[in-house]
Amino acid sequence: MSNPNQTAITPTRETDFPEWYQQVVKAADLAENSEIRGCMVIKPWGYGIWELMQSGLDAMFKATGHKNAYFPLFIPLSYLAKEAEHVEGFAKECAVVTHHRLDTGPDGRLRPSPSAELNEPLIVRPTSETIIGAAYARWVKSYRDLPILINQWANVVRWEMRPRVFLRTAEFLWQEGHTAHETEAEAIEETERMLAVYETFARDWLSLPVVAGRKSASERFPGAVETLCIETMVQDRKAIQAGTSHFLGQNFSRTSGIKFLGRDNSEQFAWTTSWGVSTRLIGAMIMTHGDDDGMVLPPRVAPVQVVLLPVTPKPDSRSSVLEAAEKLAASLRACRVWDEPLRIEVDARDLGGGVKNWEWIKKGAPIRIEIGPRDIEKGTVAVSRRDRDHKNKSFPTICELTAGLPKLLEDIQANLLSRAETFRLEHTHQIDTEADFRAFFTPQNPSKPKIHGGFALAHWDGSSETEARIKEELKVTIRCIPRGEFEPGTCPFSGKQSACRVIWAKSY
Amino acid sequence: MSNPNQTAITPTRETDFPEWYQQVVKAADLAENSEIRGCMVIKPWGYGIWELMQSGLDAMFKATGHKNAYFPLFIPLSYLAKEAEHVEGFAKECAVVTHHRLDTGPDGRLRPSPSAELNEPLIVRPTSETIIGAAYARWVKSYRDLPILINQWANVVRWEMRPRVFLRTAEFLWQEGHTAHETEAEAIEETERMLAVYETFARDWLSLPVVAGRKSASERFPGAVETLCIETMVQDRKAIQAGTSHFLGQNFSRTSGIKFLGRDNSEQFAWTTSWGVSTRLIGAMIMTHGDDDGMVLPPRVAPVQVVLLPVTPKPDSRSSVLEAAEKLAASLRACRVWDEPLRIEVDARDLGGGVKNWEWIKKGAPIRIEIGPRDIEKGTVAVSRRDRDHKNKSFPTICELTAGLPKLLEDIQANLLSRAETFRLEHTHQIDTEADFRAFFTPQNPSKPKIHGGFALAHWDGSSETEARIKEELKVTIRCIPRGEFEPGTCPFSGKQSACRVIWAKSY
Repeated sequence: MSNPNQTAITPTRETDFPEWYQQVVKAADLAENSEIRGCMVIKPWGYGIWELMQSGLDAMFKATGHKNAYFPLFIPLSYLAKEAEHVEGFAKECAVVTHHRLDTGPDGRLRPSPSAELNEPLIVRPTSETIIGAAYARWVKSYRDLPILINQWANVVRWEMRPRVFLRTAEFLWQEGHTAHETEAEAIEETERMLAVYETFARDWLSLPVVAGRKSASERFPGAVETLCIETMVQDRKAIQAGTSHFLGQNFSRTSGIKFLGRDNSEQFAWTTSWGVSTRLIGAMIMTHGDDDGMVLPPRVAPVQVVLLPVTPKPDSRSSVLEAAEKLAASLRACRVWDEPLRIEVDARDLGGGVKNWEWIKKGAPIRIEIGPRDIEKGTVAVSRRDRDHKNKSFPTICELTAGLPKLLEDIQANLLSRAETFRLEHTHQIDTEADFRAFFTPQNPSKPKIHGGFALAHWDGSSETEARIKEELKVTIRCIPRGEFEPGTCPFSGKQSACRVIWAKSY
Repeated sequence: MSNPNQTAITPTRETDFPEWYQQVVKAADLAENSEIRGCMVIKPWGYGIWELMQSGLDAMFKATGHKNAYFPLFIPLSYLAKEAEHVEGFAKECAVVTHHRLDTGPDGRLRPSPSAELNEPLIVRPTSETIIGAAYARWVKSYRDLPILINQWANVVRWEMRPRVFLRTAEFLWQEGHTAHETEAEAIEETERMLAVYETFARDWLSLPVVAGRKSASERFPGAVETLCIETMVQDRKAIQAGTSHFLGQNFSRTSGIKFLGRDNSEQFAWTTSWGVSTRLIGAMIMTHGDDDGMVLPPRVAPVQVVLLPVTPKPDSRSSVLEAAEKLAASLRACRVWDEPLRIEVDARDLGGGVKNWEWIKKGAPIRIEIGPRDIEKGTVAVSRRDRDHKNKSFPTICELTAGLPKLLEDIQANLLSRAETFRLEHTHQIDTEADFRAFFTPQNPSKPKIHGGFALAHWDGSSETEARIKEELKVTIRCIPRGEFEPGTCPFSGKQSACRVIWAKSY
């Protein structure tokens, strides 16, 4: 870092956004690819973020009446086959278990034992509607057994052809809510309630200013009647789908046999929903908040919110500095923000101050505090915010620091949100002609071909044909039909009538 | 329940212990078998217990310096094959993924697509030493990179031939710690530290008075140098292995290539450990604490510690009783025990009081509180402890209740531990001849053939032959070589010298 203009991450976002992303994941020590194609190792710093996300979401799920449970990893082939659209959507990308034992073949090598072939192959769950539906069919007899409000934290597998760490991996971690209701209205209400939970969580915890809406038919979850979603814009102006909530109607309850005796004594099928978010949210945060020096973490999901970096230029003052740092850490841990104790770490490793400082910059710790012999004399510390230039420091007294730290973290959390919101608004445009639309989604600057476009608010005639043509020609899709938009107009692609503007974008 | 001698669970423990167990799992709504052989559905009450176990253990792991991370579900066949004993131990019971896509066969039916066969089959992890070892091999270069102290919460699959819910299932949930160290001594210290964590957790959280020790060679984890374990005795006097901590020496670091440049600049292999407990602990708790009326939960892992049962004999007083119950619940939620708010639930369902009362008895909620119109008048409630006869109630005032509830929960927690400890001691005998040993493990009462034996403290000559013969003839194995026992003697089976008594028992 001797050159003041050099960044910790090479290449920069402008130069090569996809490669910048991979380098941030590596430099921040978040995750890495494993030898199993498309499967990642989530390292402690990355997993620590996921644990905080889990705890935040889990509390919100429980506050809305849900309980956790756990269902089998394996789905019989015949279950998946029950729902036609569902199997169509997942058959091309699933891991299939065919044997339950290994033995040594004639060539002396280990192999799946031919005598242990399963009668029916098992699919490693890509999602659990069918296996959970089978359980609900056993549990539900009467309207009194409804609603069932259950969530599962689990790993799922979708054999992705173009994996990208966090954003699209063969195995990923997620939560999947699965609910069954007596009436259509209740199920629709649940679908909307959980989308609102996701929207709140993304905004308040991850500083992601998501747009909420519903998917067009072609982008729906396979088997859903309606898919609601939250979409976020990242710094190369593409969209990332950050969470979905599906109203499944009676599709899955019919195929799984979730039926009950209603209040009028007639046999009825339950109305079901499902909703999920995954470790992909970590990818969305990196791409939204990261900069050319690495990750930038919203404090609410930072495993370490404040790192204390003891500055120990001389061996003889080292122990007194470390002691002062530990003492300061202990008093800061007594402070609270967002109803939890501050997460403080003292980095006492015997490494150069610059090395340690840059490690924490790359990891995205929201606040770094340096404390050295001269600071101790003066009763001050040097404070750096990760959301500001790393040379920009403040020098509060210990007293001012302790009093102000919770507020400082709240400021950073809010600043990341507002910065991302400004960015999204800057790159969201109303577009009314196909020519303008094509120009918007064509790289203007040949030196940075990866960054262009944004969210185009354009009319759409509602037809899958128009949607398919644009996708084919420009790789641009309808990300969502925003909530509450009812401004009729003309579709720029077909000239036909349109009920409202929808959000078009390239996406991950 | 009109017959006062009738129990909520049929059969009773004495009549048919294995069937009693299945019926408790069902009656307490803990879990159920799914259609996938050996795979269970963990229902919300069972999963709630697991969540509390996780939170208790996780805090203990973190307090001992560990962090969580996540590694791939799939293990390449060749990895498993690297460690000879390891593959021998797991090859016979693993789920093998051979294809990554489905298609429609010539008969019109869905099948694993022949064009999507994997070059190398993948094993669904039965345990993760090999896949985690591969990651550590990438991470470790110098002694400065050690120790690595990581834990993973995950699902694993072992294709069990005789599955039994919680105790032995094809898929189960667990945590697996995997650590790598610079020296042998540090790795051994870690192995012992984590066994001590398990022992403390089992005793203080689950009220399980486990015995700690080490396994004989034949019972070791495949590939381990030494396996430490905690063993508990359940009410049919069999042993359940409740947790294991393995010292792996350099076996896995050699096969995985976890090597580093040491302080003396020589290349060395790391010393590794692994340790785990699983959802089987729930089975151990059921079999230890349960009675003929169902589950009995230690309060520390009870999702609901105190259930309030409003008694509403007349429609016109119903709302005032419910209101009083909610008010009481709110004030009780402000009380704390074991440093957490009490977990209180008001069961306001419009069902008969007896039905609700028995549901909570069967689920094992530690305390039930009835509150009705007359109680409200008198300012008292009726309190029942799950660890005492259900007809045995006390009638404290609201004031006494609030003041005494945390202590009451602590009492129940301690009582369950001491009851189980007394039981274990009653059925632990020093045995010095093979004839006595055989008699001890032979059913004495033909009407209850399943309950006999216990822990036999007998000498052993240390040979695998003796061990194998007893296992073959009596289905009795060495459960553990207790810590700190050094009383030399004579092996009753071979007449040879013995270093100490070991614990023999039948086991799950």
